[in-house]
Amino acid sequence: MTLPTAEIVCLGNELLIGVTINTNAAFIGEHLTRLGYEVRRITSIRDDLELALEFFKELFQRKPDVIIVTGGLGPTYDDIQLEVISKATGLELIEDKEALEQIKRYYGKKGYELTPERRKMALIPKTARILDNSVGGAPGCHITYHGMEIFCLPGVPTEMKDIFVRHVVPYLSKKNSIRLAETKFVVLNCIESQIAPYINEVKKNYPELYIKSHPAYKDKIGIVIHISGTGINAEERVEQAKKRLQELFLANIHSIEIKRLEE
Amino acid sequence: MTLPTAEIVCLGNELLIGVTINTNAAFIGEHLTRLGYEVRRITSIRDDLELALEFFKELFQRKPDVIIVTGGLGPTYDDIQLEVISKATGLELIEDKEALEQIKRYYGKKGYELTPERRKMALIPKTARILDNSVGGAPGCHITYHGMEIFCLPGVPTEMKDIFVRHVVPYLSKKNSIRLAETKFVVLNCIESQIAPYINEVKKNYPELYIKSHPAYKDKIGIVIHISGTGINAEERVEQAKKRLQELFLANIHSIEIKRLEE
Repeated sequence: MTLPTAEIVCLGNELLIGVTINTNAAFIGEHLTRLGYEVRRITSIRDDLELALEFFKELFQRKPDVIIVTGGLGPTYDDIQLEVISKATGLELIEDKEALEQIKRYYGKKGYELTPERRKMALIPKTARILDNSVGGAPGCHITYHGMEIFCLPGVPTEMKDIFVRHVVPYLSKKNSIRLAETKFVVLNCIESQIAPYINEVKKNYPELYIKSHPAYKDKIGIVIHISGTGINAEERVEQAKKRLQELFLANIHSIEIKRLEE
Repeated sequence: MTLPTAEIVCLGNELLIGVTINTNAAFIGEHLTRLGYEVRRITSIRDDLELALEFFKELFQRKPDVIIVTGGLGPTYDDIQLEVISKATGLELIEDKEALEQIKRYYGKKGYELTPERRKMALIPKTARILDNSVGGAPGCHITYHGMEIFCLPGVPTEMKDIFVRHVVPYLSKKNSIRLAETKFVVLNCIESQIAPYINEVKKNYPELYIKSHPAYKDKIGIVIHISGTGINAEERVEQAKKRLQELFLANIHSIEIKRLEE
C-alpha cells in the first residue's frame, strides 16, 4: 500500500548556523508518520528570498501530498515565508481581515499598538484559510495548490505545536484513512552488527515492512528495534515479524536480553 | 565577500519519523559557520536508494563547495550512504584495505569476528580517502568530486563528532581563509515585534551584515540579537551595527534591558 507523502520545510538561518536544534521537524515527523503519511524529506533553508524560491519550485515539482512549512511568519525583515510561497505559487499576498483581527486582539491584550511590522503578519496568500494561533501573534494558514496541501506555521515551537495540533492533525487525520501498524522493543547486551544478519533475514520474508535497529533511540539504553507497516494485514504481519526476530535473536546471540520499550 | 557554500545531508528514517532529533546538523552547521562557510541547506532523507539517489543528483547540480553527509555507514541492510554516493558519482565501491584493517581492529578488540555485515563497511568509493573512526566501527571517507569536497560520516553523534573534529575541521579550516566576524547580546523586557523596526533600520545601513533576533535561543531567557558578517572591515562593521542598534533600543523602548550573552 502506498502512503500519501509529505515534506517538512523549516525556514530560518538559526537552524543552518546551529543556533537552534530542529525539534520542530521531529515533532511534526512523528505526528505525520502516526497519521499514515510517509515523510520523504525534511529541509532547512535560509531566510533568503532567492534561495528559498529556488527550493520551493523544486519542491512543487516533487508534488508531495502534504507540505508543512515552519518559521518565517514573524514581524522582522527576514520573516519571508509567505512572500516566498506567494511568489512560488503565484497567489498574491492580500491583507486578510480575519488575520488582522487576530493580530490586533493578540497585541491589544498586551497593550501594544498595531505597528507596520505587526500588520505585515496579516498579509496572507489569496485563497488561503487562516489557522488561528492561540499562543503568539502570527496566524498560520492552509493553502491547497495543485493538489498539494500546504500548511504555513510559525517557527516558535509552542506556537507551531498549538496550530499543528488544533488544525493540521484533525485535517490530515480525516483526509487519510490508512494507519500505521507498529511495534518497538529493546535489546540489551549486544551490538548492532550482531543483530544485523537476523534483521536482514526476517526482512526477506517481510519485504513490505520497515524493520530498523536504532542504537541511539531518544534517551533509552540498549538498541531499539522498530517494526512498522501499512496495509490490510499490517498488524498481523508486524507481530509475526517481531516474534520471528525475537526467536532468532534468542537462539543465536548468547548474551542478548529482550525487553519491552517503556515510552 | 562571497563565502564558500556548504550543504548538510542526514540519512536515516529515524529522523523523518521523529524518533531522533537531528542534533548532528546543528553541531555541523555551527562549526561550518565559524569556519566561514555558508550553510545553504540541511536535508534529511530516507534510507531509500531511489529517493536518495534522486536527491544526490539534484545536490550535485547545485554544486556546493562542501557536502557533509551523516548516517547510513553501518552494518545493516538499510545503511546505504556509500552505495548511493557510488551510484550518484559513478565511483565504484571497492574493498579498502585500510578501512578493513580498522574494522578488524575495532571488532577484534571486542572479541567479535569479521562477519559479512561488518566487512561491508570497508566498501568505499574508489579514490576516497579514509577518515578513521576512533569511537566506532565504521570509518568515514573524503571524496573530491567535480570540485565538491564530500565528507561521508556516520550518524551516531559520538562517532560523527570524532571524525568531524579530527579530520573535517582541520581540512576545511586550511582550505578557507575567510573568517566570520560576529557578536551576540541579549535584550530583556520586550517582545520581538518591538525591536523589529530598529533592526530593519540598522539593516538598511549595513546591508551586507546578517542581523537577526532569536526569541528562542538555546536555553536563554530573553531575545538574543546576533550580528555577523565577513570581509575586510567585518569586525568593525559588526561592532558599529551593534552600537547603533543598542542606542536605538535604549532611546525608543522604555522597558528594555541589554545584557551580555553568557554562553
